[in-house]
Amino acid sequence: MSHGGRTSRRSVLAGASAMLAAAGVPVVAPRAQTGADPLPSWNDGRAKQAILDFVHATTDPSSKDLVDPEDRIATFDQDGTLWIEHPIYVQAVFALDRVHALAPQHPEWRGREPFKSVLAGDMAAVAHFAEPQWLQIVGATHAGMSTERFEAIATAWIATARDHRFNRLYTDLVYQPMREAMDLLHANGFKVYIVTGGGQEFVRTYARRVYGIPPEQVVGSSIAVKYEMRDDGPILMREPRMFFNDDNAGKAIGINLFIGKRPYAAFGNSDGDREMLEWTGAGAGPRLKMLVHHDDAKREYAYGPGGGLPDTHVGRFSNALMTEATARGWNVISMKDDWRRVFAFE
Amino acid sequence: MSHGGRTSRRSVLAGASAMLAAAGVPVVAPRAQTGADPLPSWNDGRAKQAILDFVHATTDPSSKDLVDPEDRIATFDQDGTLWIEHPIYVQAVFALDRVHALAPQHPEWRGREPFKSVLAGDMAAVAHFAEPQWLQIVGATHAGMSTERFEAIATAWIATARDHRFNRLYTDLVYQPMREAMDLLHANGFKVYIVTGGGQEFVRTYARRVYGIPPEQVVGSSIAVKYEMRDDGPILMREPRMFFNDDNAGKAIGINLFIGKRPYAAFGNSDGDREMLEWTGAGAGPRLKMLVHHDDAKREYAYGPGGGLPDTHVGRFSNALMTEATARGWNVISMKDDWRRVFAFE
Repeated sequence: MSHGGRTSRRSVLAGASAMLAAAGVPVVAPRAQTGADPLPSWNDGRAKQAILDFVHATTDPSSKDLVDPEDRIATFDQDGTLWIEHPIYVQAVFALDRVHALAPQHPEWRGREPFKSVLAGDMAAVAHFAEPQWLQIVGATHAGMSTERFEAIATAWIATARDHRFNRLYTDLVYQPMREAMDLLHANGFKVYIVTGGGQEFVRTYARRVYGIPPEQVVGSSIAVKYEMRDDGPILMREPRMFFNDDNAGKAIGINLFIGKRPYAAFGNSDGDREMLEWTGAGAGPRLKMLVHHDDAKREYAYGPGGGLPDTHVGRFSNALMTEATARGWNVISMKDDWRRVFAFE
Repeated sequence: MSHGGRTSRRSVLAGASAMLAAAGVPVVAPRAQTGADPLPSWNDGRAKQAILDFVHATTDPSSKDLVDPEDRIATFDQDGTLWIEHPIYVQAVFALDRVHALAPQHPEWRGREPFKSVLAGDMAAVAHFAEPQWLQIVGATHAGMSTERFEAIATAWIATARDHRFNRLYTDLVYQPMREAMDLLHANGFKVYIVTGGGQEFVRTYARRVYGIPPEQVVGSSIAVKYEMRDDGPILMREPRMFFNDDNAGKAIGINLFIGKRPYAAFGNSDGDREMLEWTGAGAGPRLKMLVHHDDAKREYAYGPGGGLPDTHVGRFSNALMTEATARGWNVISMKDDWRRVFAFE
């Protein structure tokens, strides 16, 4: 089963049960029907019930809305949906750290924006960087090396980098309720994808270990690569230009491109996920559309409608998105009310 | 299990066995070790033995080269590797048929190349079309409609279109020995992908039914699509420009982009597969690199080195490729000598 390295034996076996059931072999006690609460980090409420009802409707053999296991696709945004994204995206922290690491080889950066502000530690300026600045930074830090070299650098970074507020590894700042939702869907025969605006190759370096998601189930933004035959064999050289922007409409396009099936369940948290939820919701039968609303300043952050943080480019949840969510009947998850705990370490 | 709708219960169960074995559950009698020949359409010889040896080396629990089930990836080119490609690619026949079907709405085509030659049935001219001509034809026949509409058109076409020489549905002109190789790999825990220079969305319309390969395991060339919100919901509109060319170096790039793992086995038949085999072969451990050589004018066609057919752009197997195959120790499959039968209907 391809769900990944950290998948427990229990969920591997649950996955095997789903397969055997699909092959017509009777299976006893599928996980969703056992007595244990499959979503213990969720408070009882509409959001939790929507997930449970959806799983029951799409997988119970007697359901009129039973979905063929082949078609059970669930997609999750990453930043702000599966893990923390404030005050800036984790991958942006990686890029800024790389600017510092590479600065000795680029003395000219001290006098040239956007590098100058980064090297001066001017985070107020960094917070206002727009796409052109970030493209320059990504070009300088994510390109000009082979895919293997990039993977090694990113893997080493994520193993030790810590969030300042929580003083935790970023990989510890995964939302436990969402891990449970992913596991519940997987255990019920859903193929679970991450569909992220972040870098596909960056997320792939830890997705298996952290989320149990293998590389081929990570769809993300990517830069162009070029095939080069060297003396010791071929490499894929990363080039400083965008190939695919997996955000906004790009999420619906990326889902079609990489998966070729319409999801039955989609989880997001920002305007960048709007088209993914629209595309999911446009399918026939039961479709689960969930949006995380960060309204918990105490345990995490409060931003978006009613939130106290300034509306920077990070994780923007606009009033227009909330209006659309209400109009289309999407489920808005209140981090404060719906999540019994936010992180596994709590 | 995601291998697809036509997958037999036997192979689903074999896949489940691989999973259970991966989870530490003892499994009796994996398929590769049963007495039945898993490749009955292959003659005994180096090519057949290379496949059997590879499967044994990578999946036998006592093998020093045992490959983690998570990493068992096999990739197959389609045209000329899984099914017939002469005298022109099947998808090109589809495109030409679409030009005829659309001609009444385009009276100007009668006086304008490349449409004029197509409508006149001048196949000698068509045989010499190069990329600019084909891009025009693809733009006129594969774009300007939603992905759903394209899928419906392609699905209807492939259900009835017949090859002239064999008077058979194209989907009957699949090479039976290759189906057996795909099934053997799948039954031994390999995730099997089609990696085609052809159109990804075209191949996806029949890949599950014909090869047992689900949409998310079809990597191919694609045109750009645009997300549009209509009154009755969102669509993805196909645009007349290339997005990704999954041929030559594009195959190694596409494998990295869509799968994110290096294949252990790769099957091709032409210069367009060279980089896929190089990329596969550059990995550590046992890697199976196979090239189909069409040297059977009687049962199919003879082209490439020693072949009698003119060297058009279709399925070019150059002398340089043969030289590289020899130098790198790739296995060249002689259709004439290695295949006991070519098609299932024989």
